[in-house]
Parts: sequence; structure tokens; C-alpha cells
Amino acid sequence: MADLKKVYSHEFTSANFPLDEDGRTYHVSTKPGEVANRVVTVGDHYRAFQIAEYFDNVTREDLTIKESGPFKVSNDHIFMYMSKRNFLTITGTYKGVPVSVVAICMGMPMMDFFIRETRHVVKGPMAIIRFGSCGTIKDIETGSIAVATGAFMVSRNYDYFTSENETSPYYISEACSADKELQEILYNNLKHECKNDNIKVVKGLNGSADSFYSSQARYDSNFVDSNENLFKAIKEKHPDCITLEMETFGLFHLAKCVTSTYNKNQEPKSKKVKRISNEIKTAATTMIFANRVNNTFISTEKVPILQEKMIKSILDSLIEINLGDEKVKSKN
Amino acid sequence: MADLKKVYSHEFTSANFPLDEDGRTYHVSTKPGEVANRVVTVGDHYRAFQIAEYFDNVTREDLTIKESGPFKVSNDHIFMYMSKRNFLTITGTYKGVPVSVVAICMGMPMMDFFIRETRHVVKGPMAIIRFGSCGTIKDIETGSIAVATGAFMVSRNYDYFTSENETSPYYISEACSADKELQEILYNNLKHECKNDNIKVVKGLNGSADSFYSSQARYDSNFVDSNENLFKAIKEKHPDCITLEMETFGLFHLAKCVTSTYNKNQEPKSKKVKRISNEIKTAATTMIFANRVNNTFISTEKVPILQEKMIKSILDSLIEINLGDEKVKSKN
Repeated sequence: MADLKKVYSHEFTSANFPLDEDGRTYHVSTKPGEVANRVVTVGDHYRAFQIAEYFDNVTREDLTIKESGPFKVSNDHIFMYMSKRNFLTITGTYKGVPVSVVAICMGMPMMDFFIRETRHVVKGPMAIIRFGSCGTIKDIETGSIAVATGAFMVSRNYDYFTSENETSPYYISEACSADKELQEILYNNLKHECKNDNIKVVKGLNGSADSFYSSQARYDSNFVDSNENLFKAIKEKHPDCITLEMETFGLFHLAKCVTSTYNKNQEPKSKKVKRISNEIKTAATTMIFANRVNNTFISTEKVPILQEKMIKSILDSLIEINLGDEKVKSKN
Repeated sequence: MADLKKVYSHEFTSANFPLDEDGRTYHVSTKPGEVANRVVTVGDHYRAFQIAEYFDNVTREDLTIKESGPFKVSNDHIFMYMSKRNFLTITGTYKGVPVSVVAICMGMPMMDFFIRETRHVVKGPMAIIRFGSCGTIKDIETGSIAVATGAFMVSRNYDYFTSENETSPYYISEACSADKELQEILYNNLKHECKNDNIKVVKGLNGSADSFYSSQARYDSNFVDSNENLFKAIKEKHPDCITLEMETFGLFHLAKCVTSTYNKNQEPKSKKVKRISNEIKTAATTMIFANRVNNTFISTEKVPILQEKMIKSILDSLIEINLGDEKVKSKN
């Protein structure tokens, strides 16, 4: 059994934004200096390890889990921290530029923990690319790659199910766009990387749902979900929607809410204030695992091939984007 | 590095409710026969291990993580499965009655995965108790224990932040009640267990938020959250609210949406149909870690003492509740 003294030894001093005595945040558990300003975020630890394999000088032996979190690995070429709550942060360099990967598990609240706590410990502008899997609601074959031009949220309207006053079982939000520049760099890198293979790269809107099941119009006979018309409602509100997953909207939305660049109409306030301290440039790309039109699932042998191409494209895009950080650029 | 062949070796056949060739669900990754119908659900693996320590004949050596999931431990007295996505299910017996603990990490989507996928593999009525931590918005000291009489949801209204047409930055849902019988058994067991100690056990409504920060009225200077009046709004809509956390509402809400017992006005259809096949009886208890009135955080040395008392009370309540399962009752 894990050493529980280690797990429960930290004192937290504020109920508002708890930090332990080392300055680590409460859930993701990193502190200043441990996370790069160019970050890939993924769901599970394996994908994080697969990405970190591309970091400079990293060996497979660096990338293992031999015990429960919290634990730290730190050597010349890699920093790794697994939090008690299984957030895994790995920081290294890629082609000489500092980059991090953070595995956040699933769902919008986990994305919210990651963005806020990571933003709290990183200085200056950031670029964050989400790399995940999704289902498509269009006639696109599984094993294709999607790049999100923007994302919207599909949420269960809980009151619809327990009171008489509500008319819609689901809320479908307006869309928030990805960062245009980062999204285009990513799309072009993916197209280039896949040009000699029979892999399709598509662009379009992504819907992020608060359930893998009900809010993605899956049928679960055990529960009343009233989602028979959900695909139709999504397509009516967002005809450009091609994919559904569970996290991307959180990233795009919070990037729009960054204090220094916030503007309700979503356009940057002016060219002059665009690149100020806590800006976050965002993009997202997903492997299409499920096709919801013909109810097919990807053949898993295809996944490693897709991942290899996507990881290279994502890391290349992350170091290509200009964050106004000359020191980093000169290393490139 | 983990054996990726193991991770990506399973073929899933349906895009609607994916199951692998062994019948394991896609995220929690259990199959029929591996989960009891009496379940405690917690956030992190440590708490799951601490609970499983109370299972019959379990040794500390049974309860370790030596590698990344997916992995399985199965012997005479315990079954344990860690999924690729870090859902940890442990099944054993407590005082002779089969019980499970499932660690689900944090947030409503993770609760949704757990409930739906666990319900999918368990036959007959279930009892589920959530055990977690929370913050209080009332004048209750940290280190007290809360039992939820019901729960409501606090969700960010995303469109408020990016368009001009919305007037409220947060949605506050109606409340869903816990199962009255299970909640009372749990409350009485906790009171009994704590009667000789200076530990307060309080009852009241719980608000489940979609963020640890914004939707719980925490101030995060990096983001525009417009949550200055959120406490006031919560107290106006739900004067009985004593605690805030992030998962309980999902459990109480989905229990109301169980197909066979569903009734929009939330009352059981009739006594006759109350105990039918897929009913879920729910309750929740939390340790008060944060006091949001005076901005204090629990002294961590208190946590193990609280946990011990709560684990005993939770397990005793789980085996005490009548699920119409005579075979189980006779063992009690």
C-alpha cells in the first residue's frame, strides 16, 4: 500500500486557491519552473508517455509508473510529476525548445483544473494543443484526423428531467474558435505529415459533451436521457460540426476568458494588447475513433500509426508558434 | 514504459456502448461478476485503498500499484482492476457481504462514466454511497462531516462570457434528493461512530460545481469568471446549502433517471414498483476540508481520524440497506 503519510502530509493555507508549502497547486500539483509555456494536453498516461518519447534525449526507461502518485522523476533531460489525483506532467525539450505534456484524464472539470493550475505556475504567453480521440457525426471514416476550427458545449439540462418547466433536455452553447494561427500551423503540419499515407485530415467544429453517453446521443437503456433528437439539434445549431468529444471546448472557452485579453465579442482588443502576459493560444486535434453514422469503431491496429504522425505534427506546431519569446525562438 | 500492445490490443465493436471482446466497458473497464451491487465511490486511489483495507481478509500487500493500468489483481479475497484511464475498482466482502469501491477521479463526467458503466455490468438494485471532501459555505468548522440530504448543480453558463444575450454567468439547478432511507442509515451510523469524539456531523444540501474554482466562487485572477455574486445566488436559491464539491449531484440525478423507476416529479411511481431491477439508492458524505466563510483549510493530521470513522459508517450503511436481496441479508 502507498505511503499515506506522503499523501496527506501537506498543509494547504488558503481555501480560495490552495497551494502546499512547496507552492504546488492542489490537484495538478506542479509549481513554477516545472511546466513549459508550450504544452500538449492528453487524456491518459500512455499517450503522455508516447509524446514524451519524442522529447530530446529521453529514454523509455525514464517513462514508467512503478508506484502511486505523488511521485517525481527529475534528471538532466526530463521532469515528471504524478499528482495524487493522477494528473501527470512531463517537461523536457523538443528540438531544443522547452515543452510539456500534461495528462488530465477526461471531462471539462479535469480540463478546468489543468488550465487554471498550469496557468497559475507558468509565466507569460502559453500555447496549448489538445490531442485526443473523438467520434464523428459526419460521413468521415474512422482513422481520419480532425482539427477543430472551434468548439461548442453540449450539456445535460438537469432540470428538464426532474421538473415540468423546462423544454429542452440539452443545452448547446455558442462556439468558441481555436487560435487561428496555431490551428493553421497544426493543420498544415498534419497535412504535410500525412501526405504520403492514406490518412485524411479534416477541419471543422467540435462539440464537447458532459457525458460520453447521453450528451453524445448514445442510447443507454438503463437511464432516461431524452436524447433521440440531439444529433438533429446539434446539426441545426452547428451545421459545421464534424466531431464530438469531451474536453476541447473547455480549452477554447477559457482561453477566451483570459483576463488580459478578454473581450466579450471574442475579437482581440487591439493588435497592441494582443501579446500580453497571460494569453493562451489554443488548438486541438483528435483521432476519429468512432463513426456515429454507421456505428463503427476504429480498428485498434491503426492507432499507433496515427499517433506517430500526430505527435510529430503537434510538437512541431508548438515550437513553431510565435509567443513573442525571442529566447525560445532563437533555439529553434 | 508500459506495454502499449496491452493498452491498445482490444477491439471495440459498437460506437454506441463500446465493450471489448471480454465484455469490459470502454472506460471503467469492468465486466459482469466483477462489481458488487453495494458500492462506495471515491476520488483518488488512496482513499479506495483505505476503504478496501476494511474488506474481509484483505492485507495491505493486496493494495498496491506497481505498474500503469490496465492491470488486474484477483485472489481468494479480493478483485482489483485498474483501467487504462485510471478508474480503480476493488471488490471484496465486508462482514460477509459483497461490496465494491470505485475510484473515479473528479468531476461530473467521471461520475457519469462510473454510474453508467458500472450499472451496465451489475444486475439488480444497487446502493451507491459517495465519500469525498468538500468546502462549506456556512459557519461550520473544517474537520466536520457533512451528509447530503440532496444536491443541486452549479454550472458555468458559457455563452454569458462570449455573447451579449445572456444575463446569468451561472446556472443553479433544482435539487435532487438522496435516498431517504440510505441517507438516514448513513447519518445515524456516522453520529453513532462519532459520539465519543469532538467531531460534528451535519446534514444539508450540497452544491456540485463544474469547476473547483469559478463555479465554487473562488477568485482566479488569470480568468474572467464573473462569480462575485455566486455565493449570494446559491444561498438565495438553496438556503439549506451547506457544502460545495463536484460529483454528488451526478449520482443523485442519474439515480432519479433510472429507467424503471423514472418519474418526472421525483416521487417513486408506487410502492409496488419501487424495488425493481435497476433501481439505484444513493447517499453521500463528505469531510469538510475548506471553510469558505473564514478562508481556512483543514489541518491534514485530522484527515486520517475522520476517514476511519467515515469508512466504517459507510460500509456498515451499505450492508444495512435493504435491496430486496434476501441472500445478502441472511449473511448480515
